[in-house]
Amino acid sequence: MDQIKIFTPASVANVSCGFDVLGFCLDTVGDIMKVSKTENPGVTIGAVTGQELPKDPLKNVASVAASSLLKAHSSNNGFRIDIEKRIKPGSGIGSSAASAAGAVFAINELLGRPYSRNGLVKFAMAGESLASGAAHADNLAPVLLGGFTLVRSNKTLDIIKLPSPKDLVATIIHPKIELKTIHSRAILKNEIPLKKAVEQWGNLGAFISALYTNDYGLLSRSMEDKIIEPIRAMLIPKFNDIKHAAIDAGALGSGISGSGPSVYSLSKGEAKAKKVGQAIRTYYDEIGLDYEVHYSRINNEGIKIL
Amino acid sequence: MDQIKIFTPASVANVSCGFDVLGFCLDTVGDIMKVSKTENPGVTIGAVTGQELPKDPLKNVASVAASSLLKAHSSNNGFRIDIEKRIKPGSGIGSSAASAAGAVFAINELLGRPYSRNGLVKFAMAGESLASGAAHADNLAPVLLGGFTLVRSNKTLDIIKLPSPKDLVATIIHPKIELKTIHSRAILKNEIPLKKAVEQWGNLGAFISALYTNDYGLLSRSMEDKIIEPIRAMLIPKFNDIKHAAIDAGALGSGISGSGPSVYSLSKGEAKAKKVGQAIRTYYDEIGLDYEVHYSRINNEGIKIL
Repeated sequence: MDQIKIFTPASVANVSCGFDVLGFCLDTVGDIMKVSKTENPGVTIGAVTGQELPKDPLKNVASVAASSLLKAHSSNNGFRIDIEKRIKPGSGIGSSAASAAGAVFAINELLGRPYSRNGLVKFAMAGESLASGAAHADNLAPVLLGGFTLVRSNKTLDIIKLPSPKDLVATIIHPKIELKTIHSRAILKNEIPLKKAVEQWGNLGAFISALYTNDYGLLSRSMEDKIIEPIRAMLIPKFNDIKHAAIDAGALGSGISGSGPSVYSLSKGEAKAKKVGQAIRTYYDEIGLDYEVHYSRINNEGIKIL
Repeated sequence: MDQIKIFTPASVANVSCGFDVLGFCLDTVGDIMKVSKTENPGVTIGAVTGQELPKDPLKNVASVAASSLLKAHSSNNGFRIDIEKRIKPGSGIGSSAASAAGAVFAINELLGRPYSRNGLVKFAMAGESLASGAAHADNLAPVLLGGFTLVRSNKTLDIIKLPSPKDLVATIIHPKIELKTIHSRAILKNEIPLKKAVEQWGNLGAFISALYTNDYGLLSRSMEDKIIEPIRAMLIPKFNDIKHAAIDAGALGSGISGSGPSVYSLSKGEAKAKKVGQAIRTYYDEIGLDYEVHYSRINNEGIKIL
């Protein structure tokens, strides 16, 4: 096999109670990547459509991740990466993670699959690090493994795939302002109250239990974040209105996707997810802010070969 | 039924990564309580053996919890509580929780079971509050529900029973010094680093996932507490030596039970749990500190009627 075409999906990280550890994978939003073996060694960026991305292999997330894999594998193969970039950078749904994970996934396939999907996370981290200033696996893990994932340790990359209750549908609203992860991170406080931390880990524990038991009520009650969300909410126009409108419209819960500005909601069933979308878009219609709305089931597979 | 005799077990709270939320129930250590209907209304404390406990119903944990239930139920029944106290107060394995939970459980049975086991937690909280100065459900929940339990919210008492992998065996060592919860709590810091909190909730999420999947390796890796344990360790003689010796002897993990001074370890299988007990007792033998060692499987039932 000399060439592969893949769908590499968007993802939601920092899922409410699971800041820096919990993410899930989307199904209807993602990039298309085509990776081809080349005669000369090294990684090059070929055609890029949809968004402006650096062509310099040292500055492009996909090629940096790819090079990290090739270095470890001591491969002399060369690869060209063509990217149809559909996920907007800075939208908060894992644009750089899709590129980084997609590149290493595709090359791993072309090399005869020397690494497991889980084993690819560490190479993709090199790309993520370039994009966000700090290497975090909480978007990469759901893109590579699919479903909900927990990053137990970002240092040792101890990553757990969690079950996904089948009726969950995400509604994502993306107000068209750009937020850099590095800025959203800068406004966080280094110290937090122990009392709130205890509430947060109680909620995360309950959320994970609910995934295993398909307990939508418990899932809903545990979708709380009293630590990060109150700080980052100020970066997102109308966040509190949108969140309350989503819950009033029947969402199980709602929160900031990644480091924003996208806002995700989870609902039981597509009808409710659509109702949530209708309810929240009115807030950006009113103020005349451009936006996109996506609906997606949880993508339990992750990256797909086309 | 005018009289009931029960076994009300000891329990381990603050299980490493689950400070204030995660607990489990023991099987081989616990009190015996006998509760009898009386002619006159109100709650009285009858015979108390094993330990010195207040006979004044306003000062005894069991009667305070019992009165809380009777007040809510608007019952004119009277009850006498006889206690064979085998769990030492201040030992860190839920002595007051066993008394409070036992009292409300027994009276609920004598009243024809108007409340579920989960519904009894709120009444038992009144007793816990008397003992520790703050009402926490993290020992009460495992005593009443059995197994591992998660207190998602201490305010709304949203309590989840978790599965218990069947080969888990606890080794508890109780050095005979007395620690009051109120003092162990006083030395904690109100603010903690966000970075450590993220590690802690990653570990708790992984621990809970491991309970559902019987993943003993993951259970072991997630039994970490970098927030509370380093502070409270100083209250427990030889804590760090004991913890390391337990892990060297094959324990999956080890930590402070409740607010100490007892130290718990979890092992896969009884043989390992015994080996752990042999390894750690030597530290107290050496310094001549009196202690007790208990071995117990996880009690998945909680309080038992005898």
